[in-house]
Amino acid sequence: LRFAILGAGRMGVEHGHALIGLPDAQVVAVADPVEAAAQTVARLTRAARTYADPLDAIHDPDVEAVIIVTPTSTHAALIEAAALAGKAIFCEKPVAADLAETERVMRIVQERGVPFQIGFNRRYDAPYIQARERIDAGEVGVIEQFSATGRDPAPPPLEYLKISGGVFLDQAIHDLDIARFLVGEVTEVTAVGSVNVDPAIGEIGDVDTTTALLRFENGAQGVVQNSRRAVYGYDVRTEVFGSGGKLVMDATPKTALLRYGEGVGMDHYHFFMDRFRDAYRAEIAAFVLALREGRAPTPGAHDAVESLRLALACTRSLKEGRPVRVQDVQATP
Amino acid sequence: LRFAILGAGRMGVEHGHALIGLPDAQVVAVADPVEAAAQTVARLTRAARTYADPLDAIHDPDVEAVIIVTPTSTHAALIEAAALAGKAIFCEKPVAADLAETERVMRIVQERGVPFQIGFNRRYDAPYIQARERIDAGEVGVIEQFSATGRDPAPPPLEYLKISGGVFLDQAIHDLDIARFLVGEVTEVTAVGSVNVDPAIGEIGDVDTTTALLRFENGAQGVVQNSRRAVYGYDVRTEVFGSGGKLVMDATPKTALLRYGEGVGMDHYHFFMDRFRDAYRAEIAAFVLALREGRAPTPGAHDAVESLRLALACTRSLKEGRPVRVQDVQATP
Amino acid sequence: LRFAILGAGRMGVEHGHALIGLPDAQVVAVADPVEAAAQTVARLTRAARTYADPLDAIHDPDVEAVIIVTPTSTHAALIEAAALAGKAIFCEKPVAADLAETERVMRIVQERGVPFQIGFNRRYDAPYIQARERIDAGEVGVIEQFSATGRDPAPPPLEYLKISGGVFLDQAIHDLDIARFLVGEVTEVTAVGSVNVDPAIGEIGDVDTTTALLRFENGAQGVVQNSRRAVYGYDVRTEVFGSGGKLVMDATPKTALLRYGEGVGMDHYHFFMDRFRDAYRAEIAAFVLALREGRAPTPGAHDAVESLRLALACTRSLKEGRPVRVQDVQATP
Amino acid sequence: LRFAILGAGRMGVEHGHALIGLPDAQVVAVADPVEAAAQTVARLTRAARTYADPLDAIHDPDVEAVIIVTPTSTHAALIEAAALAGKAIFCEKPVAADLAETERVMRIVQERGVPFQIGFNRRYDAPYIQARERIDAGEVGVIEQFSATGRDPAPPPLEYLKISGGVFLDQAIHDLDIARFLVGEVTEVTAVGSVNVDPAIGEIGDVDTTTALLRFENGAQGVVQNSRRAVYGYDVRTEVFGSGGKLVMDATPKTALLRYGEGVGMDHYHFFMDRFRDAYRAEIAAFVLALREGRAPTPGAHDAVESLRLALACTRSLKEGRPVRVQDVQATP
Repeated sequence: LRFAILGAGRMGVEHGHALIGLPDAQVVAVADPVEAAAQTVARLTRAARTYADPLDAIHDPDVEAVIIVTPTSTHAALIEAAALAGKAIFCEKPVAADLAETERVMRIVQERGVPFQIGFNRRYDAPYIQARERIDAGEVGVIEQFSATGRDPAPPPLEYLKISGGVFLDQAIHDLDIARFLVGEVTEVTAVGSVNVDPAIGEIGDVDTTTALLRFENGAQGVVQNSRRAVYGYDVRTEVFGSGGKLVMDATPKTALLRYGEGVGMDHYHFFMDRFRDAYRAEIAAFVLALREGRAPTPGAHDAVESLRLALACTRSLKEGRPVRVQDVQATP
Repeated sequence: LRFAILGAGRMGVEHGHALIGLPDAQVVAVADPVEAAAQTVARLTRAARTYADPLDAIHDPDVEAVIIVTPTSTHAALIEAAALAGKAIFCEKPVAADLAETERVMRIVQERGVPFQIGFNRRYDAPYIQARERIDAGEVGVIEQFSATGRDPAPPPLEYLKISGGVFLDQAIHDLDIARFLVGEVTEVTAVGSVNVDPAIGEIGDVDTTTALLRFENGAQGVVQNSRRAVYGYDVRTEVFGSGGKLVMDATPKTALLRYGEGVGMDHYHFFMDRFRDAYRAEIAAFVLALREGRAPTPGAHDAVESLRLALACTRSLKEGRPVRVQDVQATP
Repeated sequence: LRFAILGAGRMGVEHGHALIGLPDAQVVAVADPVEAAAQTVARLTRAARTYADPLDAIHDPDVEAVIIVTPTSTHAALIEAAALAGKAIFCEKPVAADLAETERVMRIVQERGVPFQIGFNRRYDAPYIQARERIDAGEVGVIEQFSATGRDPAPPPLEYLKISGGVFLDQAIHDLDIARFLVGEVTEVTAVGSVNVDPAIGEIGDVDTTTALLRFENGAQGVVQNSRRAVYGYDVRTEVFGSGGKLVMDATPKTALLRYGEGVGMDHYHFFMDRFRDAYRAEIAAFVLALREGRAPTPGAHDAVESLRLALACTRSLKEGRPVRVQDVQATP
Repeated sequence: LRFAILGAGRMGVEHGHALIGLPDAQVVAVADPVEAAAQTVARLTRAARTYADPLDAIHDPDVEAVIIVTPTSTHAALIEAAALAGKAIFCEKPVAADLAETERVMRIVQERGVPFQIGFNRRYDAPYIQARERIDAGEVGVIEQFSATGRDPAPPPLEYLKISGGVFLDQAIHDLDIARFLVGEVTEVTAVGSVNVDPAIGEIGDVDTTTALLRFENGAQGVVQNSRRAVYGYDVRTEVFGSGGKLVMDATPKTALLRYGEGVGMDHYHFFMDRFRDAYRAEIAAFVLALREGRAPTPGAHDAVESLRLALACTRSLKEGRPVRVQDVQATP
């Protein structure tokens, strides 16, 4: 399978590493307006060609599949172009911050029948995979409560936040997608939020600390807590509780050295890549495997749309200070 | 200090054990309508006298302090009688399921100036004490998020539930009181609930699985999840998160034997007494110590009232399907 | 069952606490040359009589069983007197530091047929009981390796050490007894030792840091490491490994509060009573239960002798700088 | 830096992966008598050339450094050839099972002044690096006791064992090298061993279960336990204890999913590559970095010789049933 990597930033390098370890995959082109960055990833992946314009890579007849890790604002247009060109597509989340645009582009993907995978990497993190398997095996029984915590070590740059669509679309969406992955669809959300980390975040109309109460279609109750800053590291913990028991997904400690003294202390990774490297590798491997076996990769267009809708419902609930039914969030053309 | 234990059930035995280990305390009377039960606790505690009627024990001139562990419906009247008789009072929670009655009796306690402690035992559980100290020491910085899970292994008998005041008053109140203890007063709650464990619980108008979203006066956000049934044991976990870090209060595992195989497993105690024995002992020791040193014991009348108000706010939010301001919950005489 | 507690020191108080919680037991006498100490324990246990001389308590016709927690040097004589008087006996380890004397007294106990239990409390610590059960259930398969670490927070007073019989008899004997309890008899030991903690310990001819290599009768290999000082607390960890798996007995952490930061830290209790309180209570409860049910309590005379022999073998190996066969350690009259 | 990988087996693939992720390294040649294997690694690493004979790769003028992962019996000759050719050398342990041969070849390496690193990968496993740093920082104080456990999930093929030099040279050497790395040189060993896993291992004159007692030059005491089979996975645990505290190096659990039920369970990786992948990557990265910076890579010739000598001392102690002084193990030409 011949790939083009669109975008030679940090995730371009990362997915490049993932692809060079896979026997079925070959990177033939890298696109980035910054020539040096494109060259670096091309060297790493032994790609023959670099392009300044990702559209050129999409239309390179040698390219069968594209990995889109360009800035978020370009995702929708590139997905559309790749779908029209009949290329398989892996795209970092989100498709777009706008539901109408997301639905429009996803419709094109589905009409063209091109394989599409959205980068909800956490679905490929080992404990989440294992939890899904155990839920399927009935270990948890009927799921009754869901709880997720998602905290980053520090907020992204303000410039990034300005175009991120807000904390629910940018950060909480990972936890919301996992809620859907493990429990099912959500019918209603009540969200609160505040600015604790940086007043500048408030000045651009966003918040940095949020809590959402979820009601699931199947009757389960859920909570999701997010923060843009955890001084102790990348804190991602998810709990599923039901009539049969409880599963907790958490990182193993960063450190395999135990020190003995007073009190009990735990640590976390501070860098998302340390925390989720295996998941990033696994999602790319899964994408390649799905292509090779002719299966639809997952999570796909439906999840891209529905997890976005859920994040938008949280955003609206926070803005309007009231519970919001997820179904009421519809694209307004 | 000469004590009477009012009520010779399980908690009477337990608090009897606590008292016989304390050099400053002496149990002189035990009251219970069931003569055999009263005798058992009297034998354990070497109490000289038993009474069928707790009022007789209250008015025993030899008695300086009473431990009230009678059925909940009798608490208010016994507190009132003891306060009027000038006796120091330790009473299992709650004072009453009714806010007006609770406020009335607490007012009497305060007017009479008798020492009063309410049995929110969790405040004396080691991790909660330590968390409180570390918060005071500034380790957590500004508290931004609170999260509590409280799950019992199995629901109490239906007869008990019928008079319990509902799940928020009977069970969640411990987590709500801890929220107040660690973070501060709550201004608004949004609660949801459902019946998953036993349809009979629904038939008596109660629920067995609840989630509440809390907004604190100081801006923090909180969630509290409760269930009447956890097949894996007594699950009580509390998390406080702030600008300076995170503290998690949880039980140490029940088992100090590690087995190696596939997967990682943890366990919990199935019996609340195993889980909280040390806390029960500690709260009684603290009560005795406060009496000896002439300090007001804690938690006292104010906490009895305010934690009840918070639980009632959750109850109302669940019933009315909307956020409820805690201040709006007032006694209606 | 009517008990006399001989010795009103720390362990007298502790075992007094254990007895007052047991419905079948009643303390009728306490003996200690220090009147005030005897009175304190008598008050705690509601014992009617105190004696200055433990022999008077042994011969008190009301006394059916004795708890011997007097200084070590008196154990043998008191056991002998109690056996001759037909009283059931619980005695703190050791019977004596001398093998001949231990064998002589244990022979009297056995000839008289009085119930006898030696205070190897660790056999009643929950993880050791559970390990024994799982080994019996075949979980570990054929045991192939044993490993024990035993470290105290700080050495006892030098005055105590002088009459303790040395580190193997005083401290390591607990780990050696557990080796016998979990794996079986030991045939050969190679021990090394050094003075790291306090030169004064060396000056009295003892060591404070030891390692012993054990060969078991059933072919298993073992190691035991001891130290008189661990700055991080009471470190007792035991591992049994075999064809079927591995069991690790360790304390649960002292602290149920988790802090998040850099590195992973664990803690231990600093006080042996915090670490082993439940085991002390359990061994007394087991003794009482065995008496009530007419069973021989355990560990008994045989274990008192054989664990001592093993400790003496280690002592000899260290002294002579060579492997010692346990069978070669015999009483020299 | 231009590399040749000599040997295209599992470790050839693994080190190939390590090299392609390093910007400073380029694989230009792969040597393996099995053409297909050589091609696979060449494809992975984009190496231009393959050779059937590793000597041809060594003498390829384009090659600056060699990674020797051929069968053990060929190591010494290839190291010698590479040293004579002036190439930098990374070689999997051991150089040879024979001390004289190891010393001879290491002398050549040192005389020629070529950079040399021996593949004691565990020195690059994160907890060991961190422990070394903390020991250097004085956290452990004076080291007094060392304890290491090393157990593989299952024994290697008998054909491999026959030429492995025995369990101490093949397996325990990793723990013995870590003992030297963390504590210092060992002066005397007492080793015992038995055959529990497979009688065939005994028939070839080897054992599969061993325990060694170590005495260090600095006075510390140590124990090392090894087994060729642990049904629960790859069990590598090391403990360093001293006047200042204790450090335990262990793997983090394999599984980041916690299940709640009865008992406490832990797991381990079953595949050495899962357990030590990061260490393998790190040792190659360290080798490349040392070359680039003109520093001597570590562990080098001295450690190759001394850790072998220590393993041979254990072998001799086991054979002769007595303590062996490490200095007494000398090459007999």
